[in-house]
Amino acid sequence: MRQFVVIAHEAPADGNFTLNDLAGAGRIDLLCRCVNSALLLSHAVRENVRLHIVVDDTVAIEIDGSTVRHLHPDERSIAARLQNALQAAEEAIGYQPVESAPGIKTYRLGVAETLDRIEAGTIIQLHEDGTPIVEQEPPADPIFVLADHQSVTDTEQTLLDTHCDQRITLGPQAIHADQAITVANNYLDTEGFTQY
Amino acid sequence: MRQFVVIAHEAPADGNFTLNDLAGAGRIDLLCRCVNSALLLSHAVRENVRLHIVVDDTVAIEIDGSTVRHLHPDERSIAARLQNALQAAEEAIGYQPVESAPGIKTYRLGVAETLDRIEAGTIIQLHEDGTPIVEQEPPADPIFVLADHQSVTDTEQTLLDTHCDQRITLGPQAIHADQAITVANNYLDTEGFTQY
Repeated sequence: MRQFVVIAHEAPADGNFTLNDLAGAGRIDLLCRCVNSALLLSHAVRENVRLHIVVDDTVAIEIDGSTVRHLHPDERSIAARLQNALQAAEEAIGYQPVESAPGIKTYRLGVAETLDRIEAGTIIQLHEDGTPIVEQEPPADPIFVLADHQSVTDTEQTLLDTHCDQRITLGPQAIHADQAITVANNYLDTEGFTQY
Repeated sequence: MRQFVVIAHEAPADGNFTLNDLAGAGRIDLLCRCVNSALLLSHAVRENVRLHIVVDDTVAIEIDGSTVRHLHPDERSIAARLQNALQAAEEAIGYQPVESAPGIKTYRLGVAETLDRIEAGTIIQLHEDGTPIVEQEPPADPIFVLADHQSVTDTEQTLLDTHCDQRITLGPQAIHADQAITVANNYLDTEGFTQY
Protein backbone atom coordinates (compact mmCIF):
# COMPACT_ATOMS: atom_id res chain seq x y z
CA MET A 1 0.00 0.00 0.00
CA ARG A 2 1.02 3.59 -0.64
CA GLN A 3 0.36 6.26 1.92
CA PHE A 4 0.83 10.00 1.94
CA VAL A 5 0.88 12.18 5.05
CA VAL A 6 0.36 15.89 4.42
CA ILE A 7 1.12 18.29 7.26
CA ALA A 8 -1.23 21.28 7.01
CA HIS A 9 -0.23 24.35 8.98
CA GLU A 10 -2.85 27.00 8.37
CA ALA A 11 -6.05 25.23 7.41
CA PRO A 12 -8.84 25.81 9.94
CA ALA A 13 -9.10 22.62 12.01
CA ASP A 14 -12.73 23.38 12.87
CA GLY A 15 -13.76 23.34 9.19
CA ASN A 16 -15.02 26.89 9.45
CA PHE A 17 -14.44 28.26 5.95
CA THR A 18 -16.39 29.23 2.84
CA LEU A 19 -16.21 27.15 -0.32
CA ASN A 20 -15.95 30.42 -2.26
CA ASP A 21 -12.46 31.24 -0.93
CA LEU A 22 -10.47 28.06 -0.45
CA ALA A 23 -7.11 29.76 -0.94
CA GLY A 24 -8.00 32.24 1.78
CA ALA A 25 -8.95 29.42 4.14
CA GLY A 26 -5.42 28.44 5.09
CA ARG A 27 -4.81 27.05 1.62
CA ILE A 28 -7.54 24.42 1.67
CA ASP A 29 -7.26 24.56 -2.15
CA LEU A 30 -3.85 22.95 -1.93
CA LEU A 31 -5.10 20.21 0.37
CA CYS A 32 -7.94 19.50 -2.08
CA ARG A 33 -5.46 19.07 -4.90
CA CYS A 34 -3.44 16.74 -2.67
CA VAL A 35 -6.55 14.57 -2.30
CA ASN A 36 -6.96 14.57 -6.07
CA SER A 37 -3.30 13.79 -6.75
CA ALA A 38 -3.07 11.04 -4.18
CA LEU A 39 -6.30 9.22 -4.90
CA LEU A 40 -7.63 9.92 -8.36
CA LEU A 41 -6.80 8.46 -11.71
CA SER A 42 -8.62 9.36 -14.90
CA HIS A 43 -12.13 8.02 -14.26
CA ALA A 44 -10.95 5.80 -11.40
CA VAL A 45 -9.75 5.80 -7.79
CA ARG A 46 -6.37 4.54 -6.63
CA GLU A 47 -7.56 1.74 -4.38
CA ASN A 48 -4.05 1.05 -3.07
CA VAL A 49 -3.59 4.54 -1.62
CA ARG A 50 -4.41 6.11 1.73
CA LEU A 51 -4.00 9.82 2.31
CA HIS A 52 -3.68 11.38 5.76
CA ILE A 53 -4.02 15.13 6.21
CA VAL A 54 -2.96 16.37 9.63
CA VAL A 55 -4.39 19.80 10.33
CA ASP A 56 -2.93 22.08 13.01
CA ASP A 57 -1.26 19.06 14.64
CA THR A 58 -4.60 18.20 16.24
CA VAL A 59 -6.93 16.65 13.66
CA ALA A 60 -6.06 13.94 11.14
CA ILE A 61 -8.29 13.09 8.18
CA GLU A 62 -7.74 9.72 6.53
CA ILE A 63 -9.10 9.03 3.06
CA ASP A 64 -8.87 5.41 1.97
CA GLY A 65 -8.91 4.80 -1.77
CA SER A 66 -10.29 1.32 -1.34
CA THR A 67 -13.50 2.47 0.34
CA VAL A 68 -14.05 6.13 -0.52
CA ARG A 69 -17.04 6.81 -2.78
CA HIS A 70 -18.11 9.59 -5.13
CA LEU A 71 -14.83 11.47 -4.95
CA HIS A 72 -14.76 14.11 -7.67
CA PRO A 73 -11.56 15.82 -8.81
CA ASP A 74 -12.47 19.51 -8.48
CA GLU A 75 -11.33 21.55 -5.49
CA ARG A 76 -14.78 22.72 -4.47
CA SER A 77 -16.35 19.29 -4.14
CA ILE A 78 -13.31 17.91 -2.33
CA ALA A 79 -13.32 20.93 -0.02
CA ALA A 80 -16.89 20.11 0.97
CA ARG A 81 -15.76 16.59 1.90
CA LEU A 82 -12.85 17.93 3.96
CA GLN A 83 -15.13 20.45 5.63
CA ASN A 84 -17.52 17.67 6.68
CA ALA A 85 -14.60 15.63 7.98
CA LEU A 86 -13.19 18.55 9.99
CA GLN A 87 -16.58 19.46 11.41
CA ALA A 88 -17.03 15.85 12.52
CA ALA A 89 -13.81 16.01 14.54
CA GLU A 90 -15.50 16.96 17.77
CA GLU A 91 -17.19 13.54 17.80
CA ALA A 92 -13.83 11.77 17.54
CA ILE A 93 -11.85 10.74 20.60
CA GLY A 94 -8.13 10.21 19.95
CA TYR A 95 -7.63 6.88 18.23
CA GLN A 96 -11.40 6.40 17.93
CA PRO A 97 -12.28 8.10 14.66
CA VAL A 98 -15.55 9.34 13.31
CA GLU A 99 -16.41 8.39 9.73
CA SER A 100 -17.97 11.41 8.04
CA ALA A 101 -18.48 9.47 4.79
CA PRO A 102 -17.48 6.04 3.49
CA GLY A 103 -13.71 5.87 3.42
CA ILE A 104 -13.21 9.23 5.17
CA LYS A 105 -12.31 9.11 8.85
CA THR A 106 -11.37 11.87 11.25
CA TYR A 107 -9.08 11.33 14.23
CA ARG A 108 -8.16 13.78 16.95
CA LEU A 109 -4.48 13.09 16.54
CA GLY A 110 -1.38 15.10 15.67
CA VAL A 111 1.51 14.29 13.36
CA ALA A 112 3.43 12.04 15.78
CA GLU A 113 0.36 10.01 16.75
CA THR A 114 -0.67 9.70 13.10
CA LEU A 115 2.72 8.30 12.12
CA ASP A 116 2.46 5.88 15.03
CA ARG A 117 -1.10 4.88 14.18
CA ILE A 118 -1.04 4.22 10.45
CA GLU A 119 -0.29 0.90 8.87
CA ALA A 120 3.39 0.06 8.87
CA GLY A 121 5.68 0.93 5.98
CA THR A 122 8.83 2.77 5.05
CA ILE A 123 8.45 6.41 6.07
CA ILE A 124 9.97 8.77 3.52
CA GLN A 125 10.23 12.50 3.95
CA LEU A 126 10.01 14.42 0.69
CA HIS A 127 12.71 17.03 1.11
CA GLU A 128 14.77 19.15 -1.24
CA ASP A 129 18.00 17.90 0.33
CA GLY A 130 17.11 14.22 -0.01
CA THR A 131 18.44 11.53 -2.30
CA PRO A 132 17.09 11.83 -5.88
CA ILE A 133 14.13 9.46 -6.11
CA VAL A 134 15.46 7.87 -9.29
CA GLU A 135 18.50 6.64 -7.37
CA GLN A 136 16.41 4.88 -4.76
CA GLU A 137 14.65 1.54 -5.12
CA PRO A 138 11.06 2.18 -4.05
CA PRO A 139 10.07 0.28 -0.90
CA ALA A 140 7.10 -2.07 -0.92
CA ASP A 141 4.93 0.07 1.37
CA PRO A 142 6.05 3.67 1.12
CA ILE A 143 4.65 6.37 3.40
CA PHE A 144 5.54 9.77 1.95
CA VAL A 145 5.48 12.68 4.39
CA LEU A 146 5.36 16.24 3.15
CA ALA A 147 4.18 19.68 4.22
CA ASP A 148 1.67 22.03 2.64
CA HIS A 149 2.76 25.43 1.25
CA GLN A 150 4.89 26.08 4.33
CA SER A 151 8.07 24.23 5.20
CA VAL A 152 8.02 21.93 8.19
CA THR A 153 8.80 23.71 11.43
CA ASP A 154 11.94 22.92 13.43
CA THR A 155 9.81 20.99 15.92
CA GLU A 156 8.23 18.97 13.11
CA GLN A 157 11.61 18.31 11.55
CA THR A 158 12.96 16.97 14.85
CA LEU A 159 9.95 14.68 15.01
CA LEU A 160 10.40 13.53 11.41
CA ASP A 161 14.10 12.90 11.99
CA THR A 162 13.14 10.26 14.53
CA HIS A 163 10.34 8.72 12.45
CA CYS A 164 11.58 8.79 8.86
CA ASP A 165 13.57 5.97 7.28
CA GLN A 166 14.53 7.89 4.15
CA ARG A 167 14.70 11.41 2.81
CA ILE A 168 14.05 11.79 -0.89
CA THR A 169 13.89 14.63 -3.39
CA LEU A 170 11.82 14.49 -6.57
CA GLY A 171 13.91 16.91 -8.59
CA PRO A 172 15.79 20.17 -8.63
CA GLN A 173 12.65 22.36 -8.71
CA ALA A 174 10.57 23.20 -5.64
CA ILE A 175 7.12 22.01 -6.65
CA HIS A 176 3.75 22.17 -4.88
CA ALA A 177 2.77 19.43 -2.45
CA ASP A 178 0.05 18.14 -4.79
CA GLN A 179 2.48 18.10 -7.70
CA ALA A 180 4.94 16.16 -5.55
CA ILE A 181 2.30 13.55 -4.79
CA THR A 182 1.53 13.21 -8.50
CA VAL A 183 5.21 12.69 -9.28
CA ALA A 184 5.64 10.15 -6.47
CA ASN A 185 2.60 8.21 -7.63
CA ASN A 186 3.88 8.21 -11.20
CA TYR A 187 7.29 7.09 -10.04
CA LEU A 188 5.75 4.11 -8.26
CA ASP A 189 3.41 3.41 -11.19
CA THR A 190 6.23 3.26 -13.68
CA GLU A 191 8.69 1.24 -11.64
CA GLY A 192 9.67 -1.53 -14.02
CA PHE A 193 7.34 -0.09 -16.67
CA THR A 194 10.01 -0.22 -19.37
CA GLN A 195 10.16 -4.00 -18.91
CA TYR A 196 6.62 -4.52 -20.18
CA MET B 1 11.16 26.30 -24.27
CA ARG B 2 8.51 23.86 -23.14
CA GLN B 3 5.00 24.10 -24.47
CA PHE B 4 1.79 22.29 -23.67
CA VAL B 5 -1.31 22.24 -25.86
CA VAL B 6 -4.50 21.12 -24.13
CA ILE B 7 -7.50 20.29 -26.31
CA ALA B 8 -10.68 21.18 -24.40
CA HIS B 9 -13.87 19.65 -25.72
CA GLU B 10 -16.69 20.80 -23.48
CA ALA B 11 -15.60 24.06 -21.87
CA PRO B 12 -17.83 26.98 -22.93
CA ALA B 13 -15.87 28.96 -25.52
CA ASP B 14 -17.83 32.13 -24.70
CA GLY B 15 -16.68 32.08 -21.07
CA ASN B 16 -20.27 31.91 -19.86
CA PHE B 17 -19.99 29.96 -16.62
CA THR B 18 -20.19 30.50 -12.87
CA LEU B 19 -17.10 30.29 -10.69
CA ASN B 20 -19.19 28.30 -8.20
CA ASP B 21 -19.51 25.26 -10.47
CA LEU B 22 -16.34 24.83 -12.51
CA ALA B 23 -16.76 21.08 -12.89
CA GLY B 24 -20.23 21.63 -14.31
CA ALA B 25 -18.87 24.18 -16.78
CA GLY B 26 -17.43 21.66 -19.22
CA ARG B 27 -14.71 20.75 -16.73
CA ILE B 28 -13.12 24.17 -16.44
CA ASP B 29 -11.74 22.85 -13.13
CA LEU B 30 -9.48 20.49 -15.04
CA LEU B 31 -8.25 23.26 -17.33
CA CYS B 32 -7.44 25.39 -14.28
CA ARG B 33 -5.35 22.61 -12.82
CA CYS B 34 -3.58 22.30 -16.18
CA VAL B 35 -2.63 25.97 -15.92
CA ASN B 36 -1.31 25.35 -12.41
CA SER B 37 0.62 22.21 -13.39
CA ALA B 38 2.14 23.73 -16.49
CA LEU B 39 3.17 27.10 -15.12
CA LEU B 40 3.49 27.09 -11.34
CA LEU B 41 6.28 26.02 -9.09
CA SER B 42 6.19 26.45 -5.33
CA HIS B 43 6.19 30.24 -4.92
CA ALA B 44 7.40 30.79 -8.49
CA VAL B 45 6.37 30.69 -12.14
CA ARG B 46 7.95 28.48 -14.77
CA GLU B 47 9.27 31.18 -17.06
CA ASN B 48 10.31 28.68 -19.73
CA VAL B 49 6.79 27.33 -20.28
CA ARG B 50 3.92 28.35 -22.53
CA LEU B 51 0.52 26.73 -22.21
CA HIS B 52 -2.08 26.76 -24.98
CA ILE B 53 -5.67 25.76 -24.26
CA VAL B 54 -7.78 25.27 -27.37
CA VAL B 55 -11.48 25.41 -26.55
CA ASP B 56 -14.10 23.96 -28.87
CA ASP B 57 -11.60 24.07 -31.76
CA THR B 58 -12.33 27.78 -32.14
CA VAL B 59 -10.61 29.74 -29.36
CA ALA B 60 -7.02 29.34 -28.18
CA ILE B 61 -5.75 30.86 -24.94
CA GLU B 62 -1.99 31.21 -24.58
CA ILE B 63 -0.42 31.75 -21.16
CA ASP B 64 3.26 32.64 -21.24
CA GLY B 65 5.20 31.91 -18.06
CA SER B 66 7.77 34.58 -18.84
CA THR B 67 5.25 37.43 -18.82
CA VAL B 68 2.18 36.30 -16.88
CA ARG B 69 1.63 38.08 -13.56
CA HIS B 70 -0.23 37.35 -10.34
CA LEU B 71 -1.09 33.78 -11.25
CA HIS B 72 -2.38 32.00 -8.16
CA PRO B 73 -2.62 28.23 -7.89
CA ASP B 74 -6.26 27.71 -6.87
CA GLU B 75 -8.87 26.71 -9.42
CA ARG B 76 -11.23 29.60 -8.71
CA SER B 77 -8.74 32.38 -9.32
CA ILE B 78 -7.38 30.68 -12.44
CA ALA B 79 -10.93 30.16 -13.69
CA ALA B 80 -11.54 33.89 -13.43
CA ARG B 81 -8.48 34.49 -15.60
CA LEU B 82 -9.65 31.94 -18.17
CA GLN B 83 -13.13 33.45 -18.14
CA ASN B 84 -11.70 36.89 -18.90
CA ALA B 85 -9.61 35.43 -21.70
CA LEU B 86 -12.57 33.60 -23.24
CA GLN B 87 -14.83 36.63 -22.98
CA ALA B 88 -12.17 38.70 -24.76
CA ALA B 89 -12.21 36.30 -27.72
CA GLU B 90 -14.73 38.32 -29.70
CA GLU B 91 -12.16 41.11 -29.99
CA ALA B 92 -9.59 38.74 -31.49
CA ILE B 93 -9.30 38.17 -35.22
CA GLY B 94 -7.60 34.91 -36.17
CA TYR B 95 -3.86 35.29 -35.75
CA GLN B 96 -4.33 38.74 -34.19
CA PRO B 97 -4.82 38.00 -30.50
CA VAL B 98 -6.29 40.06 -27.73
CA GLU B 99 -4.34 40.24 -24.48
CA SER B 100 -6.79 40.02 -21.58
CA ALA B 101 -3.98 40.36 -19.03
CA PRO B 102 -0.17 40.44 -19.17
CA GLY B 103 1.01 37.13 -20.57
CA ILE B 104 -2.49 35.88 -21.41
CA LYS B 105 -3.53 36.10 -25.06
CA THR B 106 -6.65 34.86 -26.82
CA TYR B 107 -6.67 33.82 -30.47
CA ARG B 108 -9.64 32.80 -32.58
CA LEU B 109 -7.88 29.69 -33.80
CA GLY B 110 -8.50 25.96 -33.65
CA VAL B 111 -6.13 23.08 -32.93
CA ALA B 112 -4.55 22.88 -36.39
CA GLU B 113 -3.94 26.62 -36.63
CA THR B 114 -2.56 26.69 -33.10
CA LEU B 115 -0.05 23.96 -33.87
CA ASP B 116 0.93 25.88 -37.00
CA ARG B 117 1.19 29.19 -35.16
CA ILE B 118 3.20 28.39 -32.05
CA GLU B 119 6.95 28.58 -31.81
CA ALA B 120 8.66 25.61 -33.43
CA GLY B 121 9.61 22.51 -31.49
CA THR B 122 9.16 18.76 -31.37
CA ILE B 123 5.44 18.00 -31.18
CA ILE B 124 4.72 15.08 -28.87
CA GLN B 125 1.32 13.55 -28.35
CA LEU B 126 0.79 12.15 -24.87
CA HIS B 127 -0.97 8.88 -25.57
CA GLU B 128 -1.40 5.62 -23.70
CA ASP B 129 -0.03 3.64 -26.65
CA GLY B 130 3.12 5.74 -26.98
CA THR B 131 6.73 4.98 -26.17
CA PRO B 132 7.47 5.11 -22.41
CA ILE B 133 8.86 8.57 -21.70
CA VAL B 134 11.83 7.15 -19.82
CA GLU B 135 13.00 5.44 -23.00
CA GLN B 136 13.00 8.66 -24.98
CA GLU B 137 15.63 11.37 -24.90
CA PRO B 138 13.70 14.60 -24.30
CA PRO B 139 13.93 17.03 -27.21
CA ALA B 140 15.24 20.56 -26.70
CA ASP B 141 11.90 22.27 -27.34
CA PRO B 142 9.09 19.85 -26.59
CA ILE B 143 5.48 20.66 -27.37
CA PHE B 144 3.26 18.22 -25.52
CA VAL B 145 -0.27 17.81 -26.89
CA LEU B 146 -2.99 16.23 -24.80
CA ALA B 147 -6.75 16.26 -24.39
CA ASP B 148 -8.92 17.17 -21.43
CA HIS B 149 -11.12 14.54 -19.71
CA GLN B 150 -12.27 13.22 -23.07
CA SER B 151 -10.12 11.34 -25.54
CA VAL B 152 -9.22 13.05 -28.79
CA THR B 153 -11.82 12.54 -31.50
CA ASP B 154 -11.04 10.58 -34.66
CA THR B 155 -10.85 13.86 -36.56
CA GLU B 156 -8.41 15.30 -34.02
CA GLN B 157 -6.33 12.13 -34.09
CA THR B 158 -6.03 12.31 -37.87
CA LEU B 159 -4.86 15.90 -37.48
CA LEU B 160 -2.37 14.99 -34.77
CA ASP B 161 -1.04 12.10 -36.86
CA THR B 162 0.09 14.62 -39.45
CA HIS B 163 1.50 17.13 -36.94
CA CYS B 164 3.13 15.05 -34.22
CA ASP B 165 6.74 13.94 -34.30
CA GLN B 166 6.49 11.53 -31.37
CA ARG B 167 3.90 9.69 -29.33
CA ILE B 168 4.79 9.16 -25.69
CA THR B 169 3.17 7.55 -22.67
CA LEU B 170 3.94 8.60 -19.10
CA GLY B 171 3.13 5.29 -17.46
CA PRO B 172 0.75 2.36 -17.24
CA GLN B 173 -1.99 4.30 -15.42
CA ALA B 174 -4.45 6.64 -17.13
CA ILE B 175 -3.94 9.90 -15.24
CA HIS B 176 -5.64 13.27 -15.51
CA ALA B 177 -4.39 15.83 -18.02
CA ASP B 178 -3.09 18.11 -15.26
CA GLN B 179 -1.30 15.21 -13.59
CA ALA B 180 0.25 14.32 -16.95
CA ILE B 181 1.57 17.86 -17.32
CA THR B 182 3.08 17.69 -13.82
CA VAL B 183 4.81 14.42 -14.66
CA ALA B 184 6.11 15.73 -17.99
CA ASN B 185 7.46 18.87 -16.32
CA ASN B 186 9.16 16.79 -13.64
CA TYR B 187 10.62 14.50 -16.25
CA LEU B 188 12.17 17.46 -18.04
CA ASP B 189 13.28 19.02 -14.74
CA THR B 190 15.10 15.91 -13.64
CA GLU B 191 16.78 15.03 -16.92
CA GLY B 192 20.35 14.56 -15.89
CA PHE B 193 19.48 15.37 -12.27
CA THR B 194 21.31 12.31 -10.95
CA GLN B 195 24.52 13.73 -12.36
CA TYR B 196 24.48 16.71 -10.01
